[in-house]
Amino acid sequence: MSTRIWMKWAALAAAGCMALTGGEGKWTPQQVLELDPAWLKKEGLALPVSRLWDPRRGTGLLAAAVNIGGCSAGFVSASGLILTNHHCLFGVLQEHSRPQRDLITNGFLARTREEELPSKTTRVTVPRKFTDVTKQVEAAAPAGGDDLARNKAMDAKQKALVAECEKTAGARCRVAAFDGGLQYVLIESFELSDIRLVYAPPRAIGEYGGEIDNWMWPRHTGDFAMARAYKDGQPYVPEFYFPIARDGVKTGDFVMVLGYPGRTVRALTADEMADQRDYFYSPRATVYGEWIRLMEEATKDSPAGQIAVAATLKSLNNAAKNGQGQLAGLKRGRTIEKQKAHEDLVMTWAAGRPEFAAAVEAKRDLDRRAAARRKMAMRDFLYQAIQNGPLALKQATTLVRLASERVKPDMERDTDYMERELPRLRDRMEREQKSFYRPADEAVFTDWMTRFRAQNATCSDNFVVKTAYEQTRVTDLQERLKMFGESTEQLRARHDPMLELAFRLEPELRAFQTATKTHDGAVARLRPAWRKAVIAQAGKPVAPDANSTLRVSFAHVKGYAPRDGVIYTPQTTLAGMLEKHTGEEPFAVPPAVLNAAARMDASKMPLNFLADADTTGGNSGSPVVNGRGELVGLNFDRVWENVANDFGYNPEVARNVNVDVRFLLWLLRDVEKAEGLLGELGAR
Amino acid sequence: MSTRIWMKWAALAAAGCMALTGGEGKWTPQQVLELDPAWLKKEGLALPVSRLWDPRRGTGLLAAAVNIGGCSAGFVSASGLILTNHHCLFGVLQEHSRPQRDLITNGFLARTREEELPSKTTRVTVPRKFTDVTKQVEAAAPAGGDDLARNKAMDAKQKALVAECEKTAGARCRVAAFDGGLQYVLIESFELSDIRLVYAPPRAIGEYGGEIDNWMWPRHTGDFAMARAYKDGQPYVPEFYFPIARDGVKTGDFVMVLGYPGRTVRALTADEMADQRDYFYSPRATVYGEWIRLMEEATKDSPAGQIAVAATLKSLNNAAKNGQGQLAGLKRGRTIEKQKAHEDLVMTWAAGRPEFAAAVEAKRDLDRRAAARRKMAMRDFLYQAIQNGPLALKQATTLVRLASERVKPDMERDTDYMERELPRLRDRMEREQKSFYRPADEAVFTDWMTRFRAQNATCSDNFVVKTAYEQTRVTDLQERLKMFGESTEQLRARHDPMLELAFRLEPELRAFQTATKTHDGAVARLRPAWRKAVIAQAGKPVAPDANSTLRVSFAHVKGYAPRDGVIYTPQTTLAGMLEKHTGEEPFAVPPAVLNAAARMDASKMPLNFLADADTTGGNSGSPVVNGRGELVGLNFDRVWENVANDFGYNPEVARNVNVDVRFLLWLLRDVEKAEGLLGELGAR
Repeated sequence: MSTRIWMKWAALAAAGCMALTGGEGKWTPQQVLELDPAWLKKEGLALPVSRLWDPRRGTGLLAAAVNIGGCSAGFVSASGLILTNHHCLFGVLQEHSRPQRDLITNGFLARTREEELPSKTTRVTVPRKFTDVTKQVEAAAPAGGDDLARNKAMDAKQKALVAECEKTAGARCRVAAFDGGLQYVLIESFELSDIRLVYAPPRAIGEYGGEIDNWMWPRHTGDFAMARAYKDGQPYVPEFYFPIARDGVKTGDFVMVLGYPGRTVRALTADEMADQRDYFYSPRATVYGEWIRLMEEATKDSPAGQIAVAATLKSLNNAAKNGQGQLAGLKRGRTIEKQKAHEDLVMTWAAGRPEFAAAVEAKRDLDRRAAARRKMAMRDFLYQAIQNGPLALKQATTLVRLASERVKPDMERDTDYMERELPRLRDRMEREQKSFYRPADEAVFTDWMTRFRAQNATCSDNFVVKTAYEQTRVTDLQERLKMFGESTEQLRARHDPMLELAFRLEPELRAFQTATKTHDGAVARLRPAWRKAVIAQAGKPVAPDANSTLRVSFAHVKGYAPRDGVIYTPQTTLAGMLEKHTGEEPFAVPPAVLNAAARMDASKMPLNFLADADTTGGNSGSPVVNGRGELVGLNFDRVWENVANDFGYNPEVARNVNVDVRFLLWLLRDVEKAEGLLGELGAR
Repeated sequence: MSTRIWMKWAALAAAGCMALTGGEGKWTPQQVLELDPAWLKKEGLALPVSRLWDPRRGTGLLAAAVNIGGCSAGFVSASGLILTNHHCLFGVLQEHSRPQRDLITNGFLARTREEELPSKTTRVTVPRKFTDVTKQVEAAAPAGGDDLARNKAMDAKQKALVAECEKTAGARCRVAAFDGGLQYVLIESFELSDIRLVYAPPRAIGEYGGEIDNWMWPRHTGDFAMARAYKDGQPYVPEFYFPIARDGVKTGDFVMVLGYPGRTVRALTADEMADQRDYFYSPRATVYGEWIRLMEEATKDSPAGQIAVAATLKSLNNAAKNGQGQLAGLKRGRTIEKQKAHEDLVMTWAAGRPEFAAAVEAKRDLDRRAAARRKMAMRDFLYQAIQNGPLALKQATTLVRLASERVKPDMERDTDYMERELPRLRDRMEREQKSFYRPADEAVFTDWMTRFRAQNATCSDNFVVKTAYEQTRVTDLQERLKMFGESTEQLRARHDPMLELAFRLEPELRAFQTATKTHDGAVARLRPAWRKAVIAQAGKPVAPDANSTLRVSFAHVKGYAPRDGVIYTPQTTLAGMLEKHTGEEPFAVPPAVLNAAARMDASKMPLNFLADADTTGGNSGSPVVNGRGELVGLNFDRVWENVANDFGYNPEVARNVNVDVRFLLWLLRDVEKAEGLLGELGAR
């Protein structure tokens, strides 16, 4: 933002007519430096802004928030201790659980470093350097090229930048697009791949309330776990970490929520939002809802089946409930109507300014393209749902695609199949075996196929699901890992029915991918043009949509009124956990916790708290720190009324849900007697 | 209470060690005079106590609260205007509704007195005089007689007292037992039988939220209606009435809830309470739950069927949900455990006092009798459920009983079949025809019979439900009204299968009644003995259990915390009604109300409020007045967490739900334009 615009905004803000609403804004580190320091101080920031982010070095305390397999996490000790959500380290618990040693149910505590449990698949990414590469990426677009050519050229340029960046030893790089391509930033990180589990509470604590309480308030879930990062066999020493706050939080306190929010869509036009509602969230609610039912039915008499599908079910449940919440939230917040009103305002504003003529046309073009895509929306949804549906199909299509990509030069491949991605792709193929349970997979596959055929897809006419499952070797781990290395010819020679289906689907999926890329190319051209007008009209910093890059939200501990006659207080207590205790899952407090709670006034022990932070998926495990940069909690959810937050921030109900660090310490001290760990946290 | 005990209590209360908890206590008018006037003043009573009840005259403002068919109501104008709940005048709306003039759906407003709608069956009872007759009733018990003889003699004495009392022209009398027979009071009332409907809002307002919101908070229901009492063709001029308060209520305000609470069971021993839980509320939840399902299924394709069973369904739903609530509330409030602890305390206290040896023995005897009755509990439940179940059976058993009672001298009959009761019994028999829908009745009857047979009842072996419904004339209104006048021989000669079943059941029902009377006789002997000890040990006034006599509860407007993290505010607004509006029943706000609401800030219009008053069934329609005796609302429900209040008052959750009179006035003014009525209410 130019200094001129900044001053105009500051003046307006001072005049009280443009106050920020609640904790709105997932700010980039760079934007934090552009915000008014006096305002931040008034909100509650006790540190100098340069402690959060040093503009000269391009790093700071914010970088103590790291990415752990799609979740956020925070360093909390000088010896590489990492705090994140229980559900973010769930895979490690699964890796090490055996029938005779059920770590998921019992939890796990390493009393010595030797006892810590290594993970084959968990990796931590720590950001190191942010470089604006907008000019380079834009310059790569061929003059007069069509949108597909444009997309390819810009994509190639980004890959080249990443490749160049990764020449630095240990570097892991990506180019992130902001505001749909208004800005491109090269982010250099480094990866820690030796991550060992240190502590996880019993599942009954880490998932207390289960699906019933998911997205809900009041909440009583100890959704946290700890791991340690190692480098060269030694505990990793992070440059920044969050010390544990001595005092907890109380209503009204300032907090910062740091992390890697995945994706929001606030820059969409109202028409595009309506499409997302009707062709993405609506089928998520219905199709995934049906798949959940089918998986539960298929596993109802099989404990082994239930364990296998647990993680998939959890993720489907989350997605389906999220879908319902988005639909309800959009309605409640009148988000699309507000977006429409706002874009009308910007269109009127831009109409009188010749320099924004392109913006006006871009907006109209975006809406036209949305209308065109609407026609194939259900078929497209089913293509994408392969990733969340039957594993046999997901793996077969992945193997077929991999074989055809591997023969290309690395730089020409689909990003997901580039050489650097193959180890984690293989990891995933191996890991997913524990989630496979044939009756459930087959039931979901049958449903997918029925829906797919209803979309007039003809390539699958003579395919019989039952026979395919009987004959395929894709679902056999050893065979699948062999297939992972095979060529297209080798795969074809197998005459495996699941692979054959994948080969028949491959052209369709390619065509869909091309159409998507063409669309993306157009959007990458149109969106920035339109957003330029939106930002200029705002005359103040506008936080870009989430894109899995490091962000911070400035917020306060705050309850809300979900409806007339009801107030939700922002803090819950251990007494509330006991109140919900029925002894039946998901409300079965473990005896050790019941016993410890019986020795105290449980209504005095904080458990979860709400803040009005601006979060989304990917913020799971986000460290929550006070104005001095000390850890007071960790984010693990949003409230139900706030799910549609991805489309727009509604200060009335925008609340994120956090574990209070005091509960974590109590559990370590009074239940686990984890003196060593408490010492390391400086909280013994 | 003796002056000595009173002073002791006052001294303790002043010392702060025996404060009343919340609004506990359904006080009799006489007890109001025994309470500390300074305490009442401090609570918020601005009137002299003698205005509430004049001890010399035995009447006062409290008597402006009247009984209307089992509900409570209040006079609100000098011209006999009566305010009560919508559901208490629902029968009148049913009486006058026609397909082409649907008063239930549309509501009704009489713009002139001529337009008011007379009711055939609604009667209002106004209390006139209270006389302690304990000595007379007790003296009637024969020395050395058994419990059945005791019961019969005391019953006969009460009937004689009532007959004597009703010799006064227009008098309607009853003897009410307090504390299970510690005190008997002869209550002389007079009856107003010309009651005309003046106003009822549309059902969508009067029942807003329907069964979903029933017992729930936050609530947004306009559950009120108005009628006018006439005497000799002229509007009745009541001696007392409640003027409408100019100001509404706010959190913390003092209110009095006056009315006719039906039945509470706080004087039961802990063992007796456990029996009520297991053999009354538990089957109510399960058996009635099944009947509701059967009735819904039987009427799902018949609009006429749905109209017919609406009232029955409502009452069953209420009872079933009440059952569930009692079970949950007893658990939550640990009511039975507390009663046990309290009676242990009294037992220990009494053990050291020879004058209470009889009390100790009485308590043990009560528990022994409870244990004996437990064995036949389910069969007894089914006998009683005839009153709430299939109408054909209910009416057949009633006709058979009536015929056998009518031949007896009036004073020897069952109370329900005495000459004075016959007109209202016939009213009921006529009125119930509109609730009869054969498929629903037959389905419920079949279920009742299956359960009854499972209790080894053999008298019904060759009974076929389907055939009985095909052949019976009991379900034909004209035939049934003929049967109403027939003798046993005439009824037998009909060979009507439903009557024949009733004749076969009659000895069983008689035996059950005799057993009940014997039990009641014993309890009438034992309970007072035990309660004497309880009251003496308390050393302060103890409000007796509800018995459908006039009571008052002193309370305050107050929210509550239903669970950790949640606060319910004590007032809801019109905005909340709009928030719930879906356009689908039971959340369909009528267009006229939507329009009026759109012209204002709906969040400023109070709708319902909570108070911590001590209420139960029968308090429906209770006037709620401020410290100056002005009407601020009317009671219509309790909250779910407070259902088990009948067993014990829990100040944490004891909340009753009231319509705010400001909403009533707004509806009359802004929606109905009912200037005349507003003028009469002094609120134009």
